Parts: sequence; structure tokens; C-alpha cells
Amino acid sequence: MNDGSRPPSPAPGIASFGRLAVLGVGLIGGSVAAAARTAGCVDHVIGYAPGDDAREALALGLLDSVADSPAQAVAGADLIVLAAPIGALPELFAGLVPHLAPGALLTDCASTKLSTIAAARAALGPAYARYLPAHPIAGSEKHGPQAARAGLFRDAAVIVCPQPETAPQAVARVTAFWSALGGRVSELDADRHDRIFAEVSHWPHAMVFALCAAIARGPWAEDALRMAGGGLRDTSRIGASSAALWADILLDNREPVLERAAAFETELAAILGALRAGDRDALIERFARASAWRSRLRAT
Amino acid sequence: MNDGSRPPSPAPGIASFGRLAVLGVGLIGGSVAAAARTAGCVDHVIGYAPGDDAREALALGLLDSVADSPAQAVAGADLIVLAAPIGALPELFAGLVPHLAPGALLTDCASTKLSTIAAARAALGPAYARYLPAHPIAGSEKHGPQAARAGLFRDAAVIVCPQPETAPQAVARVTAFWSALGGRVSELDADRHDRIFAEVSHWPHAMVFALCAAIARGPWAEDALRMAGGGLRDTSRIGASSAALWADILLDNREPVLERAAAFETELAAILGALRAGDRDALIERFARASAWRSRLRAT
Repeated sequence: MNDGSRPPSPAPGIASFGRLAVLGVGLIGGSVAAAARTAGCVDHVIGYAPGDDAREALALGLLDSVADSPAQAVAGADLIVLAAPIGALPELFAGLVPHLAPGALLTDCASTKLSTIAAARAALGPAYARYLPAHPIAGSEKHGPQAARAGLFRDAAVIVCPQPETAPQAVARVTAFWSALGGRVSELDADRHDRIFAEVSHWPHAMVFALCAAIARGPWAEDALRMAGGGLRDTSRIGASSAALWADILLDNREPVLERAAAFETELAAILGALRAGDRDALIERFARASAWRSRLRAT
Repeated sequence: MNDGSRPPSPAPGIASFGRLAVLGVGLIGGSVAAAARTAGCVDHVIGYAPGDDAREALALGLLDSVADSPAQAVAGADLIVLAAPIGALPELFAGLVPHLAPGALLTDCASTKLSTIAAARAALGPAYARYLPAHPIAGSEKHGPQAARAGLFRDAAVIVCPQPETAPQAVARVTAFWSALGGRVSELDADRHDRIFAEVSHWPHAMVFALCAAIARGPWAEDALRMAGGGLRDTSRIGASSAALWADILLDNREPVLERAAAFETELAAILGALRAGDRDALIERFARASAWRSRLRAT
């Protein structure tokens, strides 16, 4: 620091994580950068992203500096957060290995964990012991650094998936980092993670994309824009998500998603059969099961 | 008014609708009562509902008085708002005819209009000319008078479906009533209304009930309660709605709902086929169509 300013002091009780490199500075990466700076738990945040995202993030005040390459970003970094789309992760892992500082910690933000862990295991070598796979359950249908905000992880669940090779010190330090950003960290087996998130996130995105695409193709596409009430607005919100991002997530977690889609199709066929048959009792029984489950979600 | 209190003064420029009878005082009827009293556009609101809803609404301060029967509620009423479940409407229409004051206006709140209009036409006789079918686009997954609130119709769309027999004076007066409650009133053909609402409300409810019921039956029902992020919470919100209420709405509007369900199933089959085939381009094309439509909804 030669500009005469002092580095931000860490908040009391919050460890410092030194120099942070964020690879991918869209909604998630930009929010990691902003949250870390706001928490005062880092000395410097450098960001890298292909295209204009990193310069925009710098202009938005999310970063301290911008790197021209992943190699430049990770050189000298104490902690590296990968927040790039999952399709870009294998190449990123492979490319940063020669440039890692000794002892550098790594974590990521990907929505699927098995394939991310496999890519890291294949690429990282000894540094794999310092990588803690993570999935912060935060995000929205918005994307890009413009949508980033320091509070995104406040009280958000953050799933981490320690591997047999992960050093206990890396688990503790990276967990402390996500906690410093406001997250509620819990551990989960990676296979179980991918299956649960097929149910609670990936499959619902596919379903809502189908809903919105059918409305868009149908006879009421324009009327629906004027007539939609709060119900459709909420139900369809994630249908505005990034098409490419979600195509990659669904392809990555294909089998669990197809399994949950099949369970939905069975339930839907029964509901539509009851509707065709005018079987009010059968409809009520199935809707009541749905409503009872959803009412429990409301309370949690 | 023999209790010495003055009736509420109508707000400047707001007509008075005299004595209001609300039949059915759950979320919608209770909110009609509360909104009319808050707007100061009525002298007295009397409510009727089977069961405890009317007494609860009185205790909650939504009503001025409670009737023991629909006949007692409508006797002397200047305006009657039917806010009962659609299954109860034919009997209600038939039962109130002998007790209507001369000149009494009628409107309703039902989510389907063709069957409601048919029931009114069959029952009301000369009073049919003073009935303006209406559908306020307001509500939520909650129900009962506890969920009612005076602001429910503030800036909400209210669809009205004047019939050839409807007196222009009835159209004007009932439109002014819904406007006084804060609604933005527009006219729509009843058949068109039912088809558009199959798309934007009824079919999405069936889909979300199927989603929630499949999750509830599946292996991750408990995990999903802890792991669900904002996406699933919003997508599934209407899944907490009343099972019986929605069974009746879907049965009432069966053919348009089945038609939109079929369009969704076609789209979903194409998406799942592309997912199985690993066809990223096809997924992106379909998701992008969905996202483009939903982004327009966001802007409206």
C-alpha cells in the first residue's frame, strides 16, 4: 500500500483473509467482492472476468483492481473464489495452478458440486487439499456485476462439501470466510447436494422456463403481460434467468433433474386425469398434500 | 344510526353506495368490506358467511354487522358483493332474489366468469340488469378474514364483463365502486377472460400444486424445507393455496385449463428431450424465449 491510505481494519473477531482474487465477477462474484470489502475481512480484492464484467465491477466500486488474466489475478492471492459459470471451471482450475501462491486457499460458488469437485481434483494437484467446494444459496434471476450487492449472502445458507483430502485448516478458514460474508455455513455430501438441488432449484428452473416459453408461444402472450397477478409474477420470476447459465447447470446435473422431472410428470398426469374426470375429491387430496408441504416451507 | 355516531363521510369526489352487503367474508369479501369502509363510500357494511367467518370479520373490525342468512344480509342493501366460493354462487343468487331491494346493484369476485354469469342469468330475473360481473385480480395463498386488508385492491386490476342486458347505470355505478376501493377497472369479454385466466392463473396453480405434491412425496421433502432458496419459495408460493377453492376453480374452467396444460406439456417434453440429448443449443433457444417473455412481464 503506497498510496498512503490504510488498509481497512477487520471488524473485531473477524479474521483477515489477506488478498482475495475473484474469478468471475457477475452477480455472485461481484457480491463476494463487495461483501468481503464491506466485512473488512480482506486487504485487497482483485477481479478477473472475460469481457467487460471486471471493468464494470471496478467502476461500480466492487473491486480494488482488475487483472488481465486468471494467472495475474491469483498471483500472490491468499484466497481465490471461483465464481465463473460451471462450464468455465475446468479450464480455470487448470490454468491457475502454476500461479498459485504457497498456501493459497480456494473455494467456489457452483450450483453443482460433483462435476466441480472432479474438475478441481483433476487439475489442482497438491493445492486440492486447500480447496473447499462451496455453494452459497443466493442469487436471483438478475445477472452481471450491476446486480451485485454486499448483502447478498447475509443469512443465506452456504453449503460446503469437504473432501477426504481437504485439510482441516482449509475447511476452517474458508468456512470462516463465508461466515464473515454473512452466510450460515453447513456441510453436505456432494452427491446428496446435487440431488437435493435438482429438486429445489434445477428442476424448478426447467419447469418455469417451460411455463414461460409456452405462454410466450401461446395465444395470450400479450394479454398475460397485462393480466398477470402476483401469483404468476412470483411463480414465473426465475423464468427471467440466464438461458446459457441454466442450460449448463441442467446439463451438468442431468440425471437427478430428469428423475425429479419424471416424478412431477407422474403427479401432473394424475392431477390432469382427475380434472378431466371431474374427480373433485382426488384433486382436493392432491392439492391438500401440496398445500400442507408448502405451508411448512412458509414457516421455516 | 341510533348510536349517536355519525356515518363516515365519503371522501371528496367519491360517491356513496349506501348499505353494502358482502356475502362471503374470507380474504376477498373481508377486504371488500374493509376497503369500502376505509374509502368512506358506504354507510353500513353487513356481512354473511356460513361458519365462523362473519363473526370473525366482525371481531376484526371489517364489518358493521353480521346477518344470520343471505336473505337478512341483502334486505335493504343498496349494493351486494358476492365473494363466496364459486361452487356456492348458484344457490346464493337463487336465494337472494326474493329479498332484493328495488334498484339494488350486484357484483361478484369470482375467478371464472362464464359459469358465474350463467348462474346469475338463470336466477336473477329482472335484477340481472343490475348485476355487473367482476373479477378483482387480487388475492394470495392466504385465506380467511384474518388475511383481509383494506389495501388489497389498491392499484389492482379489476376485470368487469358487462352483458347485453346490463343497464349502463349499473355498469357505471359498480365500476365507480371498484374504483373507490382502489381498483383499476377494465372491461373484457367473459369467454376471453376465462381463457386468459386459465393461462395466467388457473393453470399455473395446477402446475405448482403438482410441483409441491411431487416434492412432498419425493425423497427430499424434509431437506427441501431447509435448502429451498428464494427461487423455489417464489415459484411454489401459490402451492399453499386452498385445495378446495382451487379444485372448484379448475373444474369450473376445465377446458381452457387443459388446453394450456397441453401446451406446457409440449414445451416441457421438448426441453426434457433436449436435456436427455445433451442439446445445449436447443435448451438455450427455448430458455431464451422464456426469459425474453418474463423480462417483459417484469417491466410492466
